[in-house]
Amino acid sequence: MKDVFVHPQALVETADIGEGCRVWAWSHIMAGARVGRHCNIGEHCFIEAGARIGDGSTIKNGNMIWEGVELGEGVFVGPHVFFTNDLYPRSPRLPEARERYRDKHNWLLPTRIGRGASLGAGAIILAGITIGEYALVAAGACLTRDVPNYALVMGAPARIRGWVCRCGQPLRFYGSRATCKACGRCYQRRGHAVRALDSK
Amino acid sequence: MKDVFVHPQALVETADIGEGCRVWAWSHIMAGARVGRHCNIGEHCFIEAGARIGDGSTIKNGNMIWEGVELGEGVFVGPHVFFTNDLYPRSPRLPEARERYRDKHNWLLPTRIGRGASLGAGAIILAGITIGEYALVAAGACLTRDVPNYALVMGAPARIRGWVCRCGQPLRFYGSRATCKACGRCYQRRGHAVRALDSK
Amino acid sequence: MKDVFVHPQALVETADIGEGCRVWAWSHIMAGARVGRHCNIGEHCFIEAGARIGDGSTIKNGNMIWEGVELGEGVFVGPHVFFTNDLYPRSPRLPEARERYRDKHNWLLPTRIGRGASLGAGAIILAGITIGEYALVAAGACLTRDVPNYALVMGAPARIRGWVCRCGQPLRFYGSRATCKACGRCYQRRGHAVRALDSK
Repeated sequence: MKDVFVHPQALVETADIGEGCRVWAWSHIMAGARVGRHCNIGEHCFIEAGARIGDGSTIKNGNMIWEGVELGEGVFVGPHVFFTNDLYPRSPRLPEARERYRDKHNWLLPTRIGRGASLGAGAIILAGITIGEYALVAAGACLTRDVPNYALVMGAPARIRGWVCRCGQPLRFYGSRATCKACGRCYQRRGHAVRALDSK
Repeated sequence: MKDVFVHPQALVETADIGEGCRVWAWSHIMAGARVGRHCNIGEHCFIEAGARIGDGSTIKNGNMIWEGVELGEGVFVGPHVFFTNDLYPRSPRLPEARERYRDKHNWLLPTRIGRGASLGAGAIILAGITIGEYALVAAGACLTRDVPNYALVMGAPARIRGWVCRCGQPLRFYGSRATCKACGRCYQRRGHAVRALDSK
Repeated sequence: MKDVFVHPQALVETADIGEGCRVWAWSHIMAGARVGRHCNIGEHCFIEAGARIGDGSTIKNGNMIWEGVELGEGVFVGPHVFFTNDLYPRSPRLPEARERYRDKHNWLLPTRIGRGASLGAGAIILAGITIGEYALVAAGACLTRDVPNYALVMGAPARIRGWVCRCGQPLRFYGSRATCKACGRCYQRRGHAVRALDSK
C-alpha cells in the first residue's frame, strides 16, 4: 500500500484508502469501506463496509462508522460519536424481526456529514440525518433533524444555538452580516441559510 | 468448543457460551459470564463474570455488560450502550469508600432486559432498572425508571412516547386496539399494559 | 518496571506509572502521561501524553484521558466518560483550521477533577471545567460549568440536585448540618460551599 501508516495492532482490509492516512491501534477498517487521503483514524475505531470518509478527516478514538454513513472532506468526528443506520432496530436473530432484515431497503437509512463539519464527543446522530458544511455539533447533542451549513447545535434534542466560521470560531451577526474575529471571513445569513461571502 | 467463532484478537474465557455464537476482535468474555446460543458480540465489548445474555441476542460494538446485567432472548444492544450496576460509585481504592466495597450487597443493583427488547446507541441504563419485553429505547435516552413491555421511550430522563410491535415497527392504537401495519400482529392496551392478542 | 501489572494486550509507554497499578487489555498509555500508584485502568482506555491521574484512581473501560485532563487522588471514572479539551474543534487537516492548530494555546483547555470525585457512565465533561472534591456526576450528565465539592449533579445541562458524603452516599441537610447515615461523617453547608466538620 502507498504511504499509509497502519499500527501493528490495527486491521485494515480495504484497499480503498488514500495516501498519508494513519490508522491507530485496535481499529478495524473493513473491505468495502472507502477512506480518502490524509485521514487520521484513532484507536478503537470500526469503519464498516459501505462507509465513506472524505480527504483530511480526523476520526478520534472509539468511533464506529457504519454502512450508510458518508463523511465529506475535512470532517472532525470527536471521541465516541454515535452513528446509527436503523431507526427501529431489533436483533436480526429475533424470529419476529427476521423478515425485516432480509433486505437492507427495509431498514438502512443514510447519514451525510458535510465538508468541514465537526461532531463533538458523544454526540448522537439518528439515522437519516444530513449535517451541513462546517456545522458544529456540541458534545453530547442528540440530533433528531437535519443541521444547516455553519450552524452550532446543542442539547437533546439538539437545537440551533448559533453559527460558526469555517475556522471553527463562533460568529456574531449584525443584521445579516458577520465577520469572523479570528480569520476575517465574511458571511451573510437569511433565516437558516448562511453563506460565505468570499472564497478565501 | 462447539460451533463458536472467536476472532483471533478476542479473548473468550467462559465455557458457558452457546453454539453458533460469534465474538469479534478485541472483545473479552470473562469466565463466569453466560452467553446463550446464536449471539453476535461485536468488536471492543466486555462481558463481565456474572453477566447473562440470552439466545439470539445482538450486541453491537463497544458494549460492556457488567455483573448484575441480565439480557433475555433476542435482545438488541446498539453501539456503546451504558450499563451500570452501582448508583453511588466511588473508587474502591479511595480510603473513605473501602468499607462500601467489602461486600457486593452494599452496592450491586441488577438490571434486567426483557425478551426482544432493543436499546439504541448510547442509551444510559441506570442500575436497578427493568426493561420490558420488546420495548424500544431510543438512541441517547437516559433511563431512570422501569420500562413497560412494548413501550417506546426516549429523552433524558426517558419518557414513554409510543408503542412498538414485536417486529420493531411503531404501533398506532385506535381506542385500546392496534394492528401492526408491517406484520399484522394485534395488540390490546390498558394504560401502560400492552399485550399481544395472538401468538403468531 | 516495579510492581505494575500490564496485560499482554496493553501498550504502556510511560515510565511515570506508580507501583500497584493494573492496566488491562487493549489499553494504551502514552509516553508523557503520569499515572499515580495503585490505579486500575480498565480495557480499551487511552491515556494521552500530558494527562495526569492521581493515586488510587479507578478508570473503568473505554475511557480516553486527553492531554490537559488532570485527575486527583481516588477518582472514579465510570465507563466511557467523555473528556474533551477543545470547545470549537475542527479537523486539523482542514485547510481553514490549520492556523488554529499550529499552537496549543489557541485551543487546549484544561479539565481538573478533585480528589475522590466520581464521574458516572457516559457523562460529558466540556473542556475547561473543574469538578470539586468528592463530587458525584450522574451517569449521562452533560457538564457545562464547574461543580462544587460534594455536589451531586445530573441532567443535560447538569444541575446540582443534592450532596454526597466522601463515602459516596447522599446527604440530607437539616438547616446547615448533615450527618452521613452510612459512615457518620458530619458536614456544614453555606449555599454551595460544603465542608466536612471532622477529619476522620
